[in-house]
Amino acid sequence: MSFSPSSDAVKDINLIRDEINQALGQFIKDENRDLARIGSDLDPVSEHLEKFLLDSGKRLRPIFAYIGYLGAAKNPTPEMVTAFASLELVHVCALIHDDVMDGSDTRRGAPAIHKSFEKLHRDKKLTGSAEQFGLSAAILLGDLALIWSDQMLHKAGLSDQQLINGLKIYDEMRVELMAGQYLDVYEQALASQSVERALKVARFKSGKYTIERPLHFGAAIAGSHPSLEKLYSDYGIPLGEAFQLRDDLLGVFGDSAETGKPSGDDLREGKRTVLMAIATENAEKSERDLFDKYIGDPNLTADQISELQDAITKTGAVNQVERMITEFTNQALTALTHSGLSPVGKNLLTAMASIATKRNT
Amino acid sequence: MSFSPSSDAVKDINLIRDEINQALGQFIKDENRDLARIGSDLDPVSEHLEKFLLDSGKRLRPIFAYIGYLGAAKNPTPEMVTAFASLELVHVCALIHDDVMDGSDTRRGAPAIHKSFEKLHRDKKLTGSAEQFGLSAAILLGDLALIWSDQMLHKAGLSDQQLINGLKIYDEMRVELMAGQYLDVYEQALASQSVERALKVARFKSGKYTIERPLHFGAAIAGSHPSLEKLYSDYGIPLGEAFQLRDDLLGVFGDSAETGKPSGDDLREGKRTVLMAIATENAEKSERDLFDKYIGDPNLTADQISELQDAITKTGAVNQVERMITEFTNQALTALTHSGLSPVGKNLLTAMASIATKRNT
Repeated sequence: MSFSPSSDAVKDINLIRDEINQALGQFIKDENRDLARIGSDLDPVSEHLEKFLLDSGKRLRPIFAYIGYLGAAKNPTPEMVTAFASLELVHVCALIHDDVMDGSDTRRGAPAIHKSFEKLHRDKKLTGSAEQFGLSAAILLGDLALIWSDQMLHKAGLSDQQLINGLKIYDEMRVELMAGQYLDVYEQALASQSVERALKVARFKSGKYTIERPLHFGAAIAGSHPSLEKLYSDYGIPLGEAFQLRDDLLGVFGDSAETGKPSGDDLREGKRTVLMAIATENAEKSERDLFDKYIGDPNLTADQISELQDAITKTGAVNQVERMITEFTNQALTALTHSGLSPVGKNLLTAMASIATKRNT
Repeated sequence: MSFSPSSDAVKDINLIRDEINQALGQFIKDENRDLARIGSDLDPVSEHLEKFLLDSGKRLRPIFAYIGYLGAAKNPTPEMVTAFASLELVHVCALIHDDVMDGSDTRRGAPAIHKSFEKLHRDKKLTGSAEQFGLSAAILLGDLALIWSDQMLHKAGLSDQQLINGLKIYDEMRVELMAGQYLDVYEQALASQSVERALKVARFKSGKYTIERPLHFGAAIAGSHPSLEKLYSDYGIPLGEAFQLRDDLLGVFGDSAETGKPSGDDLREGKRTVLMAIATENAEKSERDLFDKYIGDPNLTADQISELQDAITKTGAVNQVERMITEFTNQALTALTHSGLSPVGKNLLTAMASIATKRNT
């Protein structure tokens, strides 16, 4: 199956993204007013979170929640759009804390939050360790984003019943996210080479959390639709895995101008991904030696990155991962042929399958 | 005004604590079953969070919420007790993340979470930096505790109206907590000596969050009681400050066998507290020189700690802080003489004023 999203669907998705961005902009303006009331020392917190939230981001999770709702043949109210948009703040928490855990210096083409606060410490010539200050600020800003995600959802203006329905999925999704994050950290420390284990981590860490659960969240706010939920799982789980596999490829081969992360970042971090598990499994001795020598070295040069990229490609892992992406995406698209989904939902989810897996950022 | 809590009130408070502990024990058992379903690699997460949550803790915040409800002349159902108990999980998040930010190695007499996971990394001979693994695990366990706090509240079984009323306060309280934590971190980095600034940090970081807001939370679940809310603020804000001042004294003079933290921990960390701001303000040159030389040195010996303790006492700061604690506590007790509070609420809040400010842990 080969497809490209219809230009109408892409236009609709862009309009949805605009609505979500507007809700986020309004929310953070209100919250920052509350922080300012506590004291002007909180201004850097407000400014950095606002910039981090609004300057970029694909809004995949809110968009999937929105479409999850549309799939039940209903049009969302502005209150619901606000509820869907709150998912982006969960993601902001995950990204800020992730960068601290990975020791990543850049995010979305700008300094990571902990680096920005390190700089603030140096610029203001504050006392103590700038690194520790940056770390502390990033932990707290991530916590605040997580709390704001709740607050944005709670205050969105949903009916009591909609809110109660939504909260259950929301909580389960966030527990799965943190569990998946821990599994990921543990997997790196185990230095496991297992394709199966890496796939499981990918499923919990990003697959379910990016696609399946946001769709369920939208469906829950639309009311109980067990058959729609099953369809969303059948679409969301394989597509989530395809999404994460694309991420694996971008982490090694992505163009830094587009990803906003240094090229080959996953190689410097020694990230255990499905891609690397397959590459290692397929590798001949010379390639394996190269992997052992270089992968996980934070000071890799551009030439060494390029050498590693060539070696990984030579193992056939890139082709294999591309084939898996196609296969998982097709599985997801097949789920859409089942009944119970509105025509607009089907149309947009078809387009999103492409957007989530053919992206370059 | 001098008082000691009636033995009946203390007995009642112990019974309340037992109910809260039971709710926490039940919740974490259920959650850990869900984590186990994701995979056995999450066992250390479950075990450490369960131990951290259940092994100790004064449960001040849930107890204040419980009494906040009793103050409206109603007896809570088990569902409400579960809702009140959820505040303890917010606190678990704050403590785990706090220890990472402060670089504290012990908590409640046991290794801090990041140290436990460092040890796990070493024991299992995992790859990469044990410190980074400990840090990552502590960030994620704190995040998970914060998400669990939501989940415990959402699933408690409150009526829709009770839940909606409670969520508003819950969110505001948590935003204030994180804002206060940032102000605290910033205050340390500013190396400020201002008593006024230190009092403000104390108010947001722990005063409101420990007493006033939990009382409001209990009152909100009991329904709207504006006059009771005002009374709770008049009681809670000064008592919260007295509570934090006692913390300042324990951080310098506390007995490690009772506090579960090394003696003089705040001196090693160079914590900017109200106590230290007053001591510095009052200090003569020789004492000030001693403070400059030693405070913030992580390797202070027991003798140096003892020398600092003597110097701080000599400035008169300890007496002054004790007088402030008495004054703030009396202010809080005066608020209880206003009408609108049930007799049992008044009785228990009188006892809690003593428990929160005369403690040695």
